Amino acid sequence: MPDKVNVDKFIHGGDYNPDQWLDHPEVIDRDFELFKEAGINSVTVGIFAWDKLEPSEGVYDFSWLDDVFDRAEKQGCKVILSTPSGARPRWMAEKYPEVLRVDENGRRNLYGERHNHCYTSPVYRQKVREINRRLAERYGRRENLILWHISNEYGGECHCELCQQEFRKWMKEKYKTLDNLNRCYWNEFWSHLYTSWDQIHSPSSSGDSNVLGLNLDWHRFVTDRTIDFFENEVAPLRELTPDIPVTTNFMGGNPPDSHVFYDLDYQKFAKHVDIVSWDSYPNWANGYETTEKLAAKTALMNDVMHSLKHQNYLIMENTPSQVNWHPVNRAKLPGMHEMGSLQEIAHGADSVMYFQLHQSRGASEMFHGAVITSKMSSKTRVFRDVSRVGRDLELLKDAKDSRCAEARVAIVFDYDNMWALDDARAYSNQSKKYWETIQHHYKAFWDMDIPVDIISTDDDLGKYSLVIDPMHFMMTEKFAGKLKKFTEDGGTLVGTYINGIVDENFLTYLGQGMDTWRQIYGLEVTETDTLYPEQKNNLEMFGKTYEVRDYCDLIEPESAEVEGTYGDFFYKGTPAVTRNGNAWYIGCRTDDGFLADFYGRLCRDLGLDFEIPLEKHSSKVSVRVRQTDDADYCFIINFSHEKQDVELSCDAEDVLLQEELNSGSLELEPYGVKVLKISR
Amino acid sequence: MPDKVNVDKFIHGGDYNPDQWLDHPEVIDRDFELFKEAGINSVTVGIFAWDKLEPSEGVYDFSWLDDVFDRAEKQGCKVILSTPSGARPRWMAEKYPEVLRVDENGRRNLYGERHNHCYTSPVYRQKVREINRRLAERYGRRENLILWHISNEYGGECHCELCQQEFRKWMKEKYKTLDNLNRCYWNEFWSHLYTSWDQIHSPSSSGDSNVLGLNLDWHRFVTDRTIDFFENEVAPLRELTPDIPVTTNFMGGNPPDSHVFYDLDYQKFAKHVDIVSWDSYPNWANGYETTEKLAAKTALMNDVMHSLKHQNYLIMENTPSQVNWHPVNRAKLPGMHEMGSLQEIAHGADSVMYFQLHQSRGASEMFHGAVITSKMSSKTRVFRDVSRVGRDLELLKDAKDSRCAEARVAIVFDYDNMWALDDARAYSNQSKKYWETIQHHYKAFWDMDIPVDIISTDDDLGKYSLVIDPMHFMMTEKFAGKLKKFTEDGGTLVGTYINGIVDENFLTYLGQGMDTWRQIYGLEVTETDTLYPEQKNNLEMFGKTYEVRDYCDLIEPESAEVEGTYGDFFYKGTPAVTRNGNAWYIGCRTDDGFLADFYGRLCRDLGLDFEIPLEKHSSKVSVRVRQTDDADYCFIINFSHEKQDVELSCDAEDVLLQEELNSGSLELEPYGVKVLKISR
Amino acid sequence: MPDKVNVDKFIHGGDYNPDQWLDHPEVIDRDFELFKEAGINSVTVGIFAWDKLEPSEGVYDFSWLDDVFDRAEKQGCKVILSTPSGARPRWMAEKYPEVLRVDENGRRNLYGERHNHCYTSPVYRQKVREINRRLAERYGRRENLILWHISNEYGGECHCELCQQEFRKWMKEKYKTLDNLNRCYWNEFWSHLYTSWDQIHSPSSSGDSNVLGLNLDWHRFVTDRTIDFFENEVAPLRELTPDIPVTTNFMGGNPPDSHVFYDLDYQKFAKHVDIVSWDSYPNWANGYETTEKLAAKTALMNDVMHSLKHQNYLIMENTPSQVNWHPVNRAKLPGMHEMGSLQEIAHGADSVMYFQLHQSRGASEMFHGAVITSKMSSKTRVFRDVSRVGRDLELLKDAKDSRCAEARVAIVFDYDNMWALDDARAYSNQSKKYWETIQHHYKAFWDMDIPVDIISTDDDLGKYSLVIDPMHFMMTEKFAGKLKKFTEDGGTLVGTYINGIVDENFLTYLGQGMDTWRQIYGLEVTETDTLYPEQKNNLEMFGKTYEVRDYCDLIEPESAEVEGTYGDFFYKGTPAVTRNGNAWYIGCRTDDGFLADFYGRLCRDLGLDFEIPLEKHSSKVSVRVRQTDDADYCFIINFSHEKQDVELSCDAEDVLLQEELNSGSLELEPYGVKVLKISR
Repeated sequence: MPDKVNVDKFIHGGDYNPDQWLDHPEVIDRDFELFKEAGINSVTVGIFAWDKLEPSEGVYDFSWLDDVFDRAEKQGCKVILSTPSGARPRWMAEKYPEVLRVDENGRRNLYGERHNHCYTSPVYRQKVREINRRLAERYGRRENLILWHISNEYGGECHCELCQQEFRKWMKEKYKTLDNLNRCYWNEFWSHLYTSWDQIHSPSSSGDSNVLGLNLDWHRFVTDRTIDFFENEVAPLRELTPDIPVTTNFMGGNPPDSHVFYDLDYQKFAKHVDIVSWDSYPNWANGYETTEKLAAKTALMNDVMHSLKHQNYLIMENTPSQVNWHPVNRAKLPGMHEMGSLQEIAHGADSVMYFQLHQSRGASEMFHGAVITSKMSSKTRVFRDVSRVGRDLELLKDAKDSRCAEARVAIVFDYDNMWALDDARAYSNQSKKYWETIQHHYKAFWDMDIPVDIISTDDDLGKYSLVIDPMHFMMTEKFAGKLKKFTEDGGTLVGTYINGIVDENFLTYLGQGMDTWRQIYGLEVTETDTLYPEQKNNLEMFGKTYEVRDYCDLIEPESAEVEGTYGDFFYKGTPAVTRNGNAWYIGCRTDDGFLADFYGRLCRDLGLDFEIPLEKHSSKVSVRVRQTDDADYCFIINFSHEKQDVELSCDAEDVLLQEELNSGSLELEPYGVKVLKISR
Repeated sequence: MPDKVNVDKFIHGGDYNPDQWLDHPEVIDRDFELFKEAGINSVTVGIFAWDKLEPSEGVYDFSWLDDVFDRAEKQGCKVILSTPSGARPRWMAEKYPEVLRVDENGRRNLYGERHNHCYTSPVYRQKVREINRRLAERYGRRENLILWHISNEYGGECHCELCQQEFRKWMKEKYKTLDNLNRCYWNEFWSHLYTSWDQIHSPSSSGDSNVLGLNLDWHRFVTDRTIDFFENEVAPLRELTPDIPVTTNFMGGNPPDSHVFYDLDYQKFAKHVDIVSWDSYPNWANGYETTEKLAAKTALMNDVMHSLKHQNYLIMENTPSQVNWHPVNRAKLPGMHEMGSLQEIAHGADSVMYFQLHQSRGASEMFHGAVITSKMSSKTRVFRDVSRVGRDLELLKDAKDSRCAEARVAIVFDYDNMWALDDARAYSNQSKKYWETIQHHYKAFWDMDIPVDIISTDDDLGKYSLVIDPMHFMMTEKFAGKLKKFTEDGGTLVGTYINGIVDENFLTYLGQGMDTWRQIYGLEVTETDTLYPEQKNNLEMFGKTYEVRDYCDLIEPESAEVEGTYGDFFYKGTPAVTRNGNAWYIGCRTDDGFLADFYGRLCRDLGLDFEIPLEKHSSKVSVRVRQTDDADYCFIINFSHEKQDVELSCDAEDVLLQEELNSGSLELEPYGVKVLKISR
Repeated sequence: MPDKVNVDKFIHGGDYNPDQWLDHPEVIDRDFELFKEAGINSVTVGIFAWDKLEPSEGVYDFSWLDDVFDRAEKQGCKVILSTPSGARPRWMAEKYPEVLRVDENGRRNLYGERHNHCYTSPVYRQKVREINRRLAERYGRRENLILWHISNEYGGECHCELCQQEFRKWMKEKYKTLDNLNRCYWNEFWSHLYTSWDQIHSPSSSGDSNVLGLNLDWHRFVTDRTIDFFENEVAPLRELTPDIPVTTNFMGGNPPDSHVFYDLDYQKFAKHVDIVSWDSYPNWANGYETTEKLAAKTALMNDVMHSLKHQNYLIMENTPSQVNWHPVNRAKLPGMHEMGSLQEIAHGADSVMYFQLHQSRGASEMFHGAVITSKMSSKTRVFRDVSRVGRDLELLKDAKDSRCAEARVAIVFDYDNMWALDDARAYSNQSKKYWETIQHHYKAFWDMDIPVDIISTDDDLGKYSLVIDPMHFMMTEKFAGKLKKFTEDGGTLVGTYINGIVDENFLTYLGQGMDTWRQIYGLEVTETDTLYPEQKNNLEMFGKTYEVRDYCDLIEPESAEVEGTYGDFFYKGTPAVTRNGNAWYIGCRTDDGFLADFYGRLCRDLGLDFEIPLEKHSSKVSVRVRQTDDADYCFIINFSHEKQDVELSCDAEDVLLQEELNSGSLELEPYGVKVLKISR
């Protein structure tokens, strides 16, 4: 299966719905002219177009889609073709109500919205295969077809009786015997022993919502079922168009907390797509955080996507201006669109694509930003911003096959752990802050322009010098073994509080905890002091005092050495940060100042400072490098509304200005970007 | 049909429920004595009395109601008779469950509460006609019957299958073809094309809740269906009592935001009633806003009601002390009841009526304020306050047929626009603040004692010198034409940000926007910068700097001249306020200081200052005028807890003190009121 | 029936679930060893063990439970045996769905959670009787069985058709005729007259939720139905084990407001248990209130439990460290476990028992604190803390049969009043603060170490010198008569605002109010001024000015004398606090400073200062006394994190240090406890 899109430049395109304008061909004419003007070289079509493709059961109409392919082809524009399963025609739900979802209390939805389908329904699966087969048959050989966009933003769940049966099958396959299942769920608690497989039911607010193992397995099942549905979708495509790669647009990083997508295990899902693509909607220009902070969070999200397959990925959607679903929908300020687009290229994106190329005239997303707004003009600010990015991507053409500089630092992130920790009735119930913790650790490296991978527990650790494993509450023996081997092989490991507590069945490691884990860190955690929001402690280390909040592990060192100690409470003076050979343990939630100091020293000691011939004066400027065989492309981005200087210490080519530079001072405009090509 | 109540003085009365006290005739005796003492000259009876009128199906008992009519008649007390449809007997719901409402998820309510009926149910409609006919037959000729009070505070909606069928009929009548409907709803978005009328369903959280056109049409349908139900109610009354006017009590203006009633289009509904009446519950004496601010909001609500039919209206309910359904239920402070009552008279009310004349002994409203409380005494503060207002109204008898001074200023308010703007997924989603914007513009005029009408898009603009059209997001071509003609005829128009964006089908005006609109204002809005709550801009105008929040239209003037400019952000120095002949455009949400300066100048230029022979020193004092053929009645009200002075510049009669005044200084007590009669 | 547990020392035990570890007998071996080490002398078993006792219908397995009894017996450990009805096996719900609850909207729950059973279901009742009978037959004669623990934390409600029928029966029995019922509910309001008993339905958000009488009766019915279910449970036990006392674990006092349990009338329920026991979970070490404040609230809750039967009670559950269901789950700080445990002993508890003795390895409470944690070690801090309390209880053995010093002060607390006041649509709707008011009044006495009973309206008042009756909104004529007699007999009474307003049917006392009430206090309340949170008034009394919030009764004295007056608003200078012979009336919600001054003087005047040969310097130290025939045991507890001194003025024995003391200064450690035995 192909692992990249067959194009010779960065893709600049987006979702396009001419099906909404079929009675206005002049609008479509004009659209294609404007595409040329803005450097749009790809259109993504067919998303949610099922009712135009199959207006009534078994009656198909591909004429309008043929026309789009023709128009695109004529001007060298590529096509990304979507399967239409993200929304179904009304006639289908009317005739086959089983295609609609059922909620956790057993109530079947009415027709409505999108993404409202049962993943199990045999009828729906059959209908999807059928339409996908026809699309593949008709368009699979079109020269400008470059990619399959499967469905749209998979998510949600169905609790219908068919899904319950699948869930029971899944459980049976996993646990084999009821005894085993009962033991793993610790079901004797509250007399919950299953005595028949038929008693299994998905979590529900009117049934069980406190069986931790069940909740976790339901998350896992929903991922598996979604992937199964996805595989049903792609089967005819793989058969008919083996050379066309397949993706589906992932989600995440949305305001206000820029949290990674929660509902599906993308680390598992990513194994089934050829290329990762995602929809990126950072809310630049918001009123509650600095551009710099949001930039770091967005960088992290891009590195998450890059790390899923450790290969370049696509931005499938982003907005050229504002969205319409934030609490406040502000457009990007001048410069921000270029800033944000090139940041994603810098992190390994091979595209800038928009939702949407042409704004709807009506319906719920009519005010979402678009390249061509309802003004249908090339004079708008957004059109100029988009055209500028189009020009940038054209100028960056030589960098198209570049890859990001290899990361030697990895942060472990695990979906099972996220779900389990979140669901654990323990600690500070409403604010475990697993993702926020990853964000804080990541930011320390972002400030230093050091590349970081965000890895799963399946990933190979061997290529990293430093692995960070924060709040790894649910940890398997197997992964602990990997960590142990990693440190034995000379790798440096940093773990934090609430770590290695339960196994994959949500059962506590008894006694002094998991042996392997204790061997790694050389300590036992005797308690975790969970602080109220009003309470704080201190960490004494590096001759400084750092603020500590939320969590303090009380540590009993075995082979570990004490590097930092607590400043307050009944465990004042006891170990807060320890080191066991290469394995560091940070037992408390510290402020960012500590993380900067700690990782700064560690990186210096490990020689991880990334070699860039540039000196910057502010963490508001970020530098990322993509590399080809013979050159480094340095993306220097100013994430602030003031001008910033950087010092260049070699000769280079300013790619966007198309001019040669000597070493010396470089000025960046507010939200400004420079791409320097430095030959080797 | 009669457009006024046939009485020769202001009505002073209220809701009265002797049906709760039939086993205590001595209580009813005492009530009527106390009515005399307090100057109560009307009782509103029969609201929610269905189970006493028809204790079992087809068995009627009117004896107790006969008695009320007799007692009232004996002391010259009028009767307002209510139809009982606001609540139904238990036996009816038990026998005909279809009379109960169904919620948006298809679940039929249990019997309970009030207002819990399907507006479509044929049985319910028939039962209502039947009881109404009997009431009309029996009481239509009673001399003291002055008005029909139809049902009670219509509101809410029903989603039962019968209502769905009516909704489909309504849709078919409106859109004629599915193609047309699909085009107007922009239904190709998310594959939502209807292929049969039967697929139409009301908005639902388990179905469609994001089809903007559907949501809006549902609002319209609910209004139409409610009016249809109302017409079913009044049919027998019109037939049997053609000389008795008909009203139903409208709602609105409730704390904390004093918002106009949201659920029904009263501008449409008002066409079907003979006289507008409403239930007014400003929360005087609250802890979170000044009395002055609340007074202006209450003034606005009264002007809304006055403007519905451009004729005097009735206060059908208000509380003489406290209510029982606010978060905090504080009684009016001494003086406030007279202050609030005469304010409403000053704005065109021809009555002061109470919920309730006699407090219930039990049930959910037992602690709501009443003229006769559970103390059943004339010694209570509330009884004295009510008696004083009774005396005031008696003294004001000569002003009974007066009308408010004609307004030359109008603010446009439109229900479709309110619903559409609120539902638009755009701008600052949770805080569009349409009504709040109207309140702010209105306040500028209230401070200057200049009368304002709150008009619908159907109203004639010809009689106004100044029309203000704020946030008119959903504007028809037709109304734009009216505005254009108005300005061509010499009228002055003020429009604000977010204006003329979509047509009545919720479809965007494409290109540079609606032609007519652009001709009026001589500009194009290229973008609207939507600010986060933490962000602000400035407006530079009149040599001053004003604070700007939330919205900034970016303006490209065509024929318009720039009058004010932005002080910050990337559009600093660009136009914020423009003028195109008589048409002003305020492109941003300013502070109140700007509105005061702007409208102050405008009114001076247009000669709109209202001529009152009074000078006041504080905006906490309000002056309103009602006029008869030969005299002006000036209502001067002190909305503060300090004494206030005003200067009178002519001779006058102090109506409430029954004394003649010469020009000079007049002192108002805290919350004090004076009514001056100034002969012409 | 026995009213005490047949043991010769304080019980130190807790919930124990070896049924979760049957496949690890070595764990159970170790548990029993550790019990010995920690001074655990009792285990509570069988809670939620139904599926292990009756793995399939009619098939029983008692072998494991036999083993627990044997093991315990071997080491002199007592057994408290639980009936298993708090959770049912899956097979039972699968075969008999009627055992599951139905919610207020008629939807039957799925199997899940615990406490999810219909209290009426004949099948469930029969199954419960059957298993209970078998337990009694098998274990009733075991020597170490000391107590029956019935079910677990009864609560919640069921709305199934069987329960509706029982509700109708209950109503019929109470009201006899529909006329009477209609009159009591004031049903003519909103046309709600019942015309058949079948129309009665429990309150529901989709039916009636505003019929105050119905809401109140539903609360009463739920209590009665729960007791009826309880009696069904205990019937076989009473028959077979007449000498074993019966209890069920009550709840209450949980964070953040330490509110008394709301759902069931424990004053009524307590009459049906032999011994009161409860689950006490004060959140020591929290971040939002001082330890002293929480200590007073916890003291109050213990006095509530003590007052239910005016006899010693049991702590059935508490956590030895942290819980897992607070928003933040912090463990007790060093010293706090002893502090909290001995506080409860000091208030009349005869046990310290834990949830749980051994932590679950999985499931929703796996992180709840336990004596034996997943570390399965005696080295943990919690194990040491528990062992220390075990040692304390052993040292206190001689005090085992002691009783608390008799209280001469009582605060009236009434469930009907709590439910009614809370449901009254009046005053400040969301913050009536009845319980908080009781807390504030109680605290004034706690600061003075004066014992207080919290009594029901059924209690005998004769033994008290001072009775406080705060916010007694719903008061029966009968209880008013008791209060009157109490004052006539020389007792001192203190009533507060919002008092004597409605009768037991939620009907207002008409006219000037209840005659008896007015005779007691010698005044009439003409209005209650309900203040917004932003507003405050003052009370002028004792030559001082105190802050007043929320409520100000306007008082017209008849025979009462004015002792304090208002400082502001239109009723400035009018009576705020009055005295009518022995009956004081506090008309407003004052600050704590006033309550301290007021009760301080009152107690001095009445000679209520409690005689303790100790002087303390801070209200952070609390002193409570338990008495045997020949000695006083003074529990002196430091509820602060600083050392505190007290002065002893006689000789005494320090029980915990086992040393003799002379009079002089004593130092308490932070959170430290001393128990002094002072012989008479």
